[in-house]
Amino acid sequence: MLTSPANPLLKDLRRAIARGGLTDQGYLVAETFHLLDEALRSNLEVKVALVAESALAAVRDRLGRSSRIRLIVVEDAVFRKAADTESSQGVITLAAPPSWTPDQALCGPGPALVLNGVQDPGNAGAMVRAAEAFGASGVLFVKGTVSPFNPKTLRAAAGSLFRVPFIQGLEVEEARAALDQRGIPVYVTLARGGAAPADADLARKCALVIGSEAHGVSEPLRRGGAGLTIPTAGVESLNAAAAAGIVLYEAQRQRTTAS
Amino acid sequence: MLTSPANPLLKDLRRAIARGGLTDQGYLVAETFHLLDEALRSNLEVKVALVAESALAAVRDRLGRSSRIRLIVVEDAVFRKAADTESSQGVITLAAPPSWTPDQALCGPGPALVLNGVQDPGNAGAMVRAAEAFGASGVLFVKGTVSPFNPKTLRAAAGSLFRVPFIQGLEVEEARAALDQRGIPVYVTLARGGAAPADADLARKCALVIGSEAHGVSEPLRRGGAGLTIPTAGVESLNAAAAAGIVLYEAQRQRTTAS
Repeated sequence: MLTSPANPLLKDLRRAIARGGLTDQGYLVAETFHLLDEALRSNLEVKVALVAESALAAVRDRLGRSSRIRLIVVEDAVFRKAADTESSQGVITLAAPPSWTPDQALCGPGPALVLNGVQDPGNAGAMVRAAEAFGASGVLFVKGTVSPFNPKTLRAAAGSLFRVPFIQGLEVEEARAALDQRGIPVYVTLARGGAAPADADLARKCALVIGSEAHGVSEPLRRGGAGLTIPTAGVESLNAAAAAGIVLYEAQRQRTTAS
Repeated sequence: MLTSPANPLLKDLRRAIARGGLTDQGYLVAETFHLLDEALRSNLEVKVALVAESALAAVRDRLGRSSRIRLIVVEDAVFRKAADTESSQGVITLAAPPSWTPDQALCGPGPALVLNGVQDPGNAGAMVRAAEAFGASGVLFVKGTVSPFNPKTLRAAAGSLFRVPFIQGLEVEEARAALDQRGIPVYVTLARGGAAPADADLARKCALVIGSEAHGVSEPLRRGGAGLTIPTAGVESLNAAAAAGIVLYEAQRQRTTAS
């Protein structure tokens, strides 16, 4: 049992949570029981699960006897210092992040979702969840977007980040080039002035670009892209995750109706 | 200038934020510059704006010279104790809550949105924002749902709670009776087994019920209601705010296409 906050594994974990990314060892930090289940059903390579002493029986029950997952029990007080126990529920899984090629993320049959500066990890995670739900080929996290490995993004994605192909780290010009090279037409969501999604041809292979909550889509992705504006009344904008969900839903509805 | 955390107004404010509701004096707590603007453009009766000393020039700029809003300047350190300054941006507006009748909330032309146990204030706020955006008649906060006056709900609603008719405090059986008495057909969102929203008749006057994130819709509202399930693949569910946004969007799309 770990009883010292100075334990190197716990220190590495705290740093990862603080900076919102992978641990120094290169593992993703998945909080909650649910994400442990999702990591297992998604065949992620689980390195270890850190379990608060008081949550051990529940975790063992959940995993079943045949589980080969390595558990490290952590004294409750020490666990609380490493994590937000309320949101972690006393279990934190460290797992090897999945790895995808740009072709895997961009070239499947559904639309590719491009996150261009989305800041809120809850929004970004909900968008990836909607991307999986509506059959997107994958997700591109353009530089300047919150990390897919931010523990809060992972939590909001509710397991979808373990399955949906995604790539990260491309500059916005590189992202644009990656789409152009593959002949993928680009739709850009705009606060005003674009076509209604129901009037655009979203049944074909395309990329759907969602901009940052404050500044929208940046110029290199806007250039030559077709604008999409969800028809609304009264509000300045929708919540970004709701807007992305609606555009992905509409694309899926058109594909289903067309077939 | 207020320099004491023991000031009765500040104590009242802290209690309202802690319990997620109105102040003892019956005012709603609206954080951020944006919500102050929205309160003014929505003709809310603004009681007072509390302003952190360091934000005073910016608030005065924003309000303009002709403003008659009463400002109370609060020493920065004292302001920080009363609020989460990062999310409040140094300004907190106290305003009289709008008041609506059940008929106003339920009887307009668009669908009535019924929140039946939604727990997360960010989700509830985003749903009200979508309700306004897509022309809902109003929103019913059934007992057991997060308060519309939780400062986090108000923030996520981005001003829509100042304009969309809503009522709160009905028990679930009372909510059901209020809909039945008015002859409003009920659609209930379900994780599985319901009709696709695109195949349901959402162009007619109806109520759309969204259940709690963990337990869905409760029995008295489910009874006799028609089920709606957004067609998804791979995920257990969508983010609740995204799901509500999609159903409201679909209803609006059908009304527009039908007309």
